[in-house]
Amino acid sequence: MSKNCIFCKIINGELPAYKIWENEYFIAMLDINPAAYGHVLIVPKAHFVNLHDITDEYAREFLPFAQKITRAVMDVSGAEGFNLVQNNGASAGQTVMHFHAHVVPRRIGDGLSLSWIPKSQSKEFMAEMTEKLVKKLNG
Amino acid sequence: MSKNCIFCKIINGELPAYKIWENEYFIAMLDINPAAYGHVLIVPKAHFVNLHDITDEYAREFLPFAQKITRAVMDVSGAEGFNLVQNNGASAGQTVMHFHAHVVPRRIGDGLSLSWIPKSQSKEFMAEMTEKLVKKLNG
Repeated sequence: MSKNCIFCKIINGELPAYKIWENEYFIAMLDINPAAYGHVLIVPKAHFVNLHDITDEYAREFLPFAQKITRAVMDVSGAEGFNLVQNNGASAGQTVMHFHAHVVPRRIGDGLSLSWIPKSQSKEFMAEMTEKLVKKLNG
Repeated sequence: MSKNCIFCKIINGELPAYKIWENEYFIAMLDINPAAYGHVLIVPKAHFVNLHDITDEYAREFLPFAQKITRAVMDVSGAEGFNLVQNNGASAGQTVMHFHAHVVPRRIGDGLSLSWIPKSQSKEFMAEMTEKLVKKLNG
């Protein structure tokens, strides 16, 4: 637990939340500033700042938990699709420094902008980047 | 494998790709239309359309694999943060109908729009939504 963390306070019961499900590892609750109807947050009960801090045990439990939640969110919200979004660092839009994932229900024409304009890159650039990453991953 | 799926063809070796890592379950490769320097895709080797199709075995392997990849991407790209984004359905921006997650390296002021304008909701609305989801998850 981290002393001044809003999610740790929710998990401890010190702050209220619209909790919808929990297991030994994670809780799911409504985002109080939703992007869309049925926007839910998935939060580990232990304090991890970001994806790189998550222990292997929690990492293995994350996606099965997310599947249970997103099935319910899709059913209840009646949405056509959803984004599972997990932001790491202020530059990526992370505002609470306790790992969390957003489930954002989507509809065609909902006006949400969660995409990007692709940047074409040369084959040389792509090959160089690949080489660097392969080297790093094998290092 | 799905006959006309571009990711299945890459996994089969029928199409080229900037592959950077693989294990028994997943491959990681550069996105050929990157949003940012070091934009990588994580793709399961079996054909699953979306998150709801992923088997429990693959689900448990996903985040540990993603951690390995995002650590290397952060190191090589020199980015300040990253988004892990997984889109489900055309309304959510999914263009290849084979489950995949985007690793998008981020920098302050990079101009990428992967956020949303929060919509405030009444307490009554939030309570009603919570009740519906709790009921569904316990059903």
